[in-house]
Amino acid sequence: MADADDTPFSSGADDRFHDECGVFGIFGRQDAAAIVTLGLHALQHRGQEAAGIVSYDGSQFHVERHVGLIGDTFTKQSVIDRLSGTRAIGHTRYATTGGAGLRNVQPLFAELADGGIAVAHNGNLTNAMTVQRTLQKLGAIFTSTSDTETILHLVATSKEKDINSRFTEAVRQLEGAFSLVALTAKKMIGCRDPLGIRPLVLGDLDGAWILASETCALDIIGARFVRDLKPGEMVVVTTKGIESFFPFEPQKSRFCIFEYVYFARPDSSVEGLNVYDVRKRIGAELAIENPVDADIVVPVPDSGTPAAIGFAQQANLPFELGIIRNHYVGRTFIQPGDSIRHMGVKLKHNANRKMIEGKRVVLVDDSIVRGTTSQKIVQMVRDAGAKEVHMRIASPPTRASCFYGVDTPEKSKLLASRMSIAEMADFIRVDSLGFLSIEGLYRAVGETGRNSDQPQFCDACFTGEYPTRLLDFEGADNVRTLSLLASGT
Amino acid sequence: MADADDTPFSSGADDRFHDECGVFGIFGRQDAAAIVTLGLHALQHRGQEAAGIVSYDGSQFHVERHVGLIGDTFTKQSVIDRLSGTRAIGHTRYATTGGAGLRNVQPLFAELADGGIAVAHNGNLTNAMTVQRTLQKLGAIFTSTSDTETILHLVATSKEKDINSRFTEAVRQLEGAFSLVALTAKKMIGCRDPLGIRPLVLGDLDGAWILASETCALDIIGARFVRDLKPGEMVVVTTKGIESFFPFEPQKSRFCIFEYVYFARPDSSVEGLNVYDVRKRIGAELAIENPVDADIVVPVPDSGTPAAIGFAQQANLPFELGIIRNHYVGRTFIQPGDSIRHMGVKLKHNANRKMIEGKRVVLVDDSIVRGTTSQKIVQMVRDAGAKEVHMRIASPPTRASCFYGVDTPEKSKLLASRMSIAEMADFIRVDSLGFLSIEGLYRAVGETGRNSDQPQFCDACFTGEYPTRLLDFEGADNVRTLSLLASGT
Amino acid sequence: MADADDTPFSSGADDRFHDECGVFGIFGRQDAAAIVTLGLHALQHRGQEAAGIVSYDGSQFHVERHVGLIGDTFTKQSVIDRLSGTRAIGHTRYATTGGAGLRNVQPLFAELADGGIAVAHNGNLTNAMTVQRTLQKLGAIFTSTSDTETILHLVATSKEKDINSRFTEAVRQLEGAFSLVALTAKKMIGCRDPLGIRPLVLGDLDGAWILASETCALDIIGARFVRDLKPGEMVVVTTKGIESFFPFEPQKSRFCIFEYVYFARPDSSVEGLNVYDVRKRIGAELAIENPVDADIVVPVPDSGTPAAIGFAQQANLPFELGIIRNHYVGRTFIQPGDSIRHMGVKLKHNANRKMIEGKRVVLVDDSIVRGTTSQKIVQMVRDAGAKEVHMRIASPPTRASCFYGVDTPEKSKLLASRMSIAEMADFIRVDSLGFLSIEGLYRAVGETGRNSDQPQFCDACFTGEYPTRLLDFEGADNVRTLSLLASGT
Amino acid sequence: MADADDTPFSSGADDRFHDECGVFGIFGRQDAAAIVTLGLHALQHRGQEAAGIVSYDGSQFHVERHVGLIGDTFTKQSVIDRLSGTRAIGHTRYATTGGAGLRNVQPLFAELADGGIAVAHNGNLTNAMTVQRTLQKLGAIFTSTSDTETILHLVATSKEKDINSRFTEAVRQLEGAFSLVALTAKKMIGCRDPLGIRPLVLGDLDGAWILASETCALDIIGARFVRDLKPGEMVVVTTKGIESFFPFEPQKSRFCIFEYVYFARPDSSVEGLNVYDVRKRIGAELAIENPVDADIVVPVPDSGTPAAIGFAQQANLPFELGIIRNHYVGRTFIQPGDSIRHMGVKLKHNANRKMIEGKRVVLVDDSIVRGTTSQKIVQMVRDAGAKEVHMRIASPPTRASCFYGVDTPEKSKLLASRMSIAEMADFIRVDSLGFLSIEGLYRAVGETGRNSDQPQFCDACFTGEYPTRLLDFEGADNVRTLSLLASGT
Repeated sequence: MADADDTPFSSGADDRFHDECGVFGIFGRQDAAAIVTLGLHALQHRGQEAAGIVSYDGSQFHVERHVGLIGDTFTKQSVIDRLSGTRAIGHTRYATTGGAGLRNVQPLFAELADGGIAVAHNGNLTNAMTVQRTLQKLGAIFTSTSDTETILHLVATSKEKDINSRFTEAVRQLEGAFSLVALTAKKMIGCRDPLGIRPLVLGDLDGAWILASETCALDIIGARFVRDLKPGEMVVVTTKGIESFFPFEPQKSRFCIFEYVYFARPDSSVEGLNVYDVRKRIGAELAIENPVDADIVVPVPDSGTPAAIGFAQQANLPFELGIIRNHYVGRTFIQPGDSIRHMGVKLKHNANRKMIEGKRVVLVDDSIVRGTTSQKIVQMVRDAGAKEVHMRIASPPTRASCFYGVDTPEKSKLLASRMSIAEMADFIRVDSLGFLSIEGLYRAVGETGRNSDQPQFCDACFTGEYPTRLLDFEGADNVRTLSLLASGT
Repeated sequence: MADADDTPFSSGADDRFHDECGVFGIFGRQDAAAIVTLGLHALQHRGQEAAGIVSYDGSQFHVERHVGLIGDTFTKQSVIDRLSGTRAIGHTRYATTGGAGLRNVQPLFAELADGGIAVAHNGNLTNAMTVQRTLQKLGAIFTSTSDTETILHLVATSKEKDINSRFTEAVRQLEGAFSLVALTAKKMIGCRDPLGIRPLVLGDLDGAWILASETCALDIIGARFVRDLKPGEMVVVTTKGIESFFPFEPQKSRFCIFEYVYFARPDSSVEGLNVYDVRKRIGAELAIENPVDADIVVPVPDSGTPAAIGFAQQANLPFELGIIRNHYVGRTFIQPGDSIRHMGVKLKHNANRKMIEGKRVVLVDDSIVRGTTSQKIVQMVRDAGAKEVHMRIASPPTRASCFYGVDTPEKSKLLASRMSIAEMADFIRVDSLGFLSIEGLYRAVGETGRNSDQPQFCDACFTGEYPTRLLDFEGADNVRTLSLLASGT
Repeated sequence: MADADDTPFSSGADDRFHDECGVFGIFGRQDAAAIVTLGLHALQHRGQEAAGIVSYDGSQFHVERHVGLIGDTFTKQSVIDRLSGTRAIGHTRYATTGGAGLRNVQPLFAELADGGIAVAHNGNLTNAMTVQRTLQKLGAIFTSTSDTETILHLVATSKEKDINSRFTEAVRQLEGAFSLVALTAKKMIGCRDPLGIRPLVLGDLDGAWILASETCALDIIGARFVRDLKPGEMVVVTTKGIESFFPFEPQKSRFCIFEYVYFARPDSSVEGLNVYDVRKRIGAELAIENPVDADIVVPVPDSGTPAAIGFAQQANLPFELGIIRNHYVGRTFIQPGDSIRHMGVKLKHNANRKMIEGKRVVLVDDSIVRGTTSQKIVQMVRDAGAKEVHMRIASPPTRASCFYGVDTPEKSKLLASRMSIAEMADFIRVDSLGFLSIEGLYRAVGETGRNSDQPQFCDACFTGEYPTRLLDFEGADNVRTLSLLASGT
Repeated sequence: MADADDTPFSSGADDRFHDECGVFGIFGRQDAAAIVTLGLHALQHRGQEAAGIVSYDGSQFHVERHVGLIGDTFTKQSVIDRLSGTRAIGHTRYATTGGAGLRNVQPLFAELADGGIAVAHNGNLTNAMTVQRTLQKLGAIFTSTSDTETILHLVATSKEKDINSRFTEAVRQLEGAFSLVALTAKKMIGCRDPLGIRPLVLGDLDGAWILASETCALDIIGARFVRDLKPGEMVVVTTKGIESFFPFEPQKSRFCIFEYVYFARPDSSVEGLNVYDVRKRIGAELAIENPVDADIVVPVPDSGTPAAIGFAQQANLPFELGIIRNHYVGRTFIQPGDSIRHMGVKLKHNANRKMIEGKRVVLVDDSIVRGTTSQKIVQMVRDAGAKEVHMRIASPPTRASCFYGVDTPEKSKLLASRMSIAEMADFIRVDSLGFLSIEGLYRAVGETGRNSDQPQFCDACFTGEYPTRLLDFEGADNVRTLSLLASGT
């Protein structure tokens, strides 16, 4: 999901792309909400701003939504006790710039004529505002600035009788990326958009069905991985079991390749591939494509570490922790004082002088966004006495914005959209700079190469080739009506 | 407004009836939200649980909603700063038993096809759930458990083009009590139900129009009282001035007579009468109807004080503060520890032994609800050495529940619904007990008597004669669908 | 007690003198801390900033100290549960300007060589800083800015063996006003300074001894009033009973006469007199000394009310609530936004136009401090249409600061210290102004008049005649060492 | 520092030893407190429960103490603004079991006869309670349960005239471990105990002197490392510069060798050695002493990582991230719900099945405390399909408690104190288990071996040979008087 009052161009504080959500649901298990809490904790890397859980106890729904980390806000016994029932779904979301408050924290809940429904959404719709305007003209009231609310309204206004049909009718009207988990009084529903842009997996915990964004959320509770949902698949879980539907016209999958590069947790397997393993292969491809005569390979922690290990093994160079990360830094960025903000990158990273002094260093990072962080890290490594600094990036240059649920700067702020690689090397002041090629990236994920007629993945951030229309972002009608409500609680 | 998950029979903690809301709006004035804060502070006696303010700054709406007293939650500069603009409306609401959280705090806001609208509501609809079920079948999504949300949906789904017509169409479908203040990008709208059950006055502050529940909210900011809105009147304020409409079939006014007895602040003038003055006349009528040979007249503070003064003057007896109220008690009742709750009435009142010992005491109180408080106060006065205790009540016996926005116990818990006056005197252990007659009450408000064919006021709590249908509370269809969402944030 | 970093001249926000503390202790009763909570609630008028309770459970002391009202901070079950034991003492303190934080909230606790001791103090020492400097030179460490800590150090450094002797040695070194309640593992101790400036009463609850600032704190829990402690008396409560000691040279009592005028609650009896009754007599004396031809007598609520009733009865004029107080205002003054602060007095009071218009009004207030509030109230009454306004003050002009535990403005800011009565009448714009004479005040408290050689009360705020040395406030050595620690948590 | 109400045997939640504090001070720099905030953030790994900062602005001290992480509690502008001045010291402390509240958060401040003094302490005194009892008999009042308060009292009661002499006299009476940073109106003082058990370094930021626990706190702000303070050295910084003193009898250094094993940050250099480098050498020594035929080397992240890299390089085996750490877990352990606590180790770590399945795995961890964590991690690795699991521990078996400022379980709970290595291997269910020898550890830190007559380091946790008396923990006099005050705020 995404906020309408956030442009897709708004940027995170730390010069990375950010996935905006993780979803998790379980059906038919004591302490369902406590289980969801654990699942969301494993998915915390997909969103740190806020989280919510909706449970159903057989007669009533219960909802808790809180700003902050799962481990801080959902670990009180009183919170868990309020979420009674054997069915629950949850959502964790990324800290967006505007911070629109609890209104936008998911799952969203609505009381329809035939009962309640809660929906949690990973991804971003590209026609939400267009649909919303149509619905508003018919009298629908929107109370959040989340595109996800559109889904609820489509279900609510469907003329179909049963919830399966209503949900099907609703999702058929959506464009963009959506991995959904929904809960009604009788059912838990999972659904992926026809391109399967965002991940969604099916698991099983002693007979209770689970839906989760990544397999690491199954591992944390010892659940069994069953399979990835297929692109365009909708599964419906009831007390009688699980059913699978395919409401959409069949299309070729276009899974987000950046999930492998950065978003997913290294211990997850997505779409059949182990993420850590892919990242190591990326590092190896990078070493083959961009060899360099050097003394040590140093990751920019933690996202560059698996690729650096792959690079070092391929290049037969020592892998060293030449940069140490301060793991307490995370929350600082939520409410930083100005005087601290300007101290910059050292809050988070410190060069390990003893390892670096006098060395020719290969720095491995996952991507370059604005380049400001790279600049500071390179300077820090030079200050620590590196003789040479060679930057190797474990992905192609990121040249275009994402409209599918990732927080990216607007295109003009992407370093690669306005500079050649040579200019970028100059900008971040390295002795050499190498990116993985798009073909190399496809090889790392097991393809022989990119099929340019019908790419096997969504790689729009590298290529600018978007796999769907971008209806809300085209033409003169691009008005953000919900931006009228600027803020509030 | 009222919560659907509160029966109208739920009860306050302190054995009084409670009005559930105060509303205030201003159009065309710098620091509009700060002004609204002051207005709501003056109306705090109409609701202490929570408050909200919505402002419009010319391009965007801003909303702040907080649990607690205005003086605690809306006095931070940061809160006021966020509520920018020259137009704002606000609402303060009573602490209901269930405490349904911020979802129900008003004003409610909705983004309609042609722009935002915020609504604040004093009163209670008697057909909200019936209307709601119809709307839900058409696909409407309800997110609060407040009857007020129904109004927003009716405006949203109206087929009319302009907001005046849409609002008119909406309010015509409502039954019950409603004094509304609404804010759109261009207009502030005020509206009273055709019976004018709840108050709403029009004021003026140096050219800025004001709508408020009571005149005391004008006084606090030095605004000029213009007039009461008429029953069934709708006023629309724009930058061009104010217009008046009458969307309903004309009906005879049925203003809530209990506003004079207890709800309104003594310094307010409502429907042309000063409340303190009416209460003194009530006391005088009470002394005439129920004379007693005694030494002193003692009010049950603070609500019994004006009537006690009137009684003492009429009876030519000394008025004495024989019971002292602890003014710090208010908040205790919000979160009392059990051990304190059971200590009972002395948290709030203490007998002044020196004044009472050996005296024949006339105790004057505004009403008897369950009788438990009266019982304790009488005991306290006896313990302080009173020779005789004569209770005089400044209203007729309260025998029926209110469905128009007042928190009342269910009928069976009203002492007067199950006991004769003699039995009640016995129950609260007084030497004599006298109530004001319904005719006496009508005389105190300036009538020659009650017109039993067409009563001049709503006096349903005394007579059980409700001036409207009670659609939601009749028949087999009385299902509370929203109770499915039990709790949440 | 008083803060060293508050000059005695600092001023409250609302133009009144303020007593700075209430104390309460109970020994030998289940739920002792819950009882203390109730006692402090009854004493809330003596201090609203913060409160603390220390209990002893037979092996350990427990302490809770919180900023805010008792009803807000000590009503949670968890707080009470932590304060286990059958013995507990508590303290509530006035909101001082600086807000020195939890460090200064009492009771103060210290671990001495022979066990713990907690002390709660009402009053103010006039030699605390002098003693403190001596102690510091011997190596004592002060951690609060409270004069009360001095008492703990004197007990700690006493060479006596048993706690009675140590405590006696300590209090003999004190000058100024102190009504103390202390708790050790074995004893509860109460002590009044030799002049008995501040009140302290002894009570009994089913065999459990109680010490409290005022009798209203006994009434709230149904405890029996035993007697006032005598000036200079020290009582020691153990499981064996109560013992009385007189550690000081006998002196004539000098009880604070302003306790009758304003500080004490009207339902309390202090030093044998009922406060409400004294205030009525004050009103009657005032009417005799300062008669006026008028239509109504109106109190400035709530502090002027008893005197106004007495005035009206004596003058045979109608007593009317011509000014209505908003009882929700209290907390507003704790954190007011600037825009609200400047709206001034109407936050708290509103004139009741209907009662006042066209009338000749006698306004009765308890005292005039700076005169700013009087000015605004008079203006408000004039704006409401009063034909004449006659101000009558229920005490002599306040011309001097208090150094005994009352928050007063510095002398130069006291209106009466720089203006004649005629000038004051002009300043507050009344048609006439009358104060009670000092002789009239003494008559109201039952004396035939003031003994100018040996005044029966401390009346320093009216006369400037201080009953003790003011060591800390004299000479060149008047350095506030503790002011070095400006703030903190 | 350590709390008296925590036995040194109390245990952390996560089966590791925990250093209890970090200290930082700066003298002569704009925004001193903001700089201290950054320094403490870099030292956050030394203590996460609470932190405090005291600044001096030329006339007044300011103190802020908060529970929580620096990045959460000291990043608000308002907090930093209150800490004005160009001199400031700070302290961060470990989450102890009892959680004794703000009373124990350092720096502690005292107002002495000649001015204020604040002290921050890393380490633990072994004679604090003995000294305290003596001081209490002389009348000293203790208000915290921290051993650090003893130091303040010794300074306060010193008969010496100037602060240098007073401080010297005080520290000479201390036994145990102490690295102190103190601030007075004129001076910043740093001092290490004569054995130099805890680290303390001197730095320089553009002319402003800095004292810090580790060099990483210099790096974060770009300060220059000057040198380690020498064991037994006391430095005094004034506006005139820095002076060095040696108040103690010279002794051979006994620096804590466990700082290299686990406590210090890998990018710090302590006592001349880079921590990461030492850990890699430890890993190499471990590989030499305990070779194993295996496929991959997997660290238990993050503490085992450097040793695992060293092991892998020495053994010429692939280093792989076979266990992924969830970096959001930290705060969960502060307030875990029961249902989550029992889910155990997977909150924090997950095995990366793809890397592990079918492999012979060498797991490298820094130490074994109770063994429960090791047991779970081994099980997790086996569940992920490992063919063999060989555990290698980067330190000797930990057999004894630490009394010098480290939170350790009591001796009987240390696995190595009650089992042989073979039994331990059985207990944690590994195919083989190897520890580094004590000689190997000494070699890794650059010694040729351990001098058993005069060990070069404090290695008491491995050998049980304590370098000081343990006065408070011997004999019948071991009474914890302060435990009388059980809790409180």
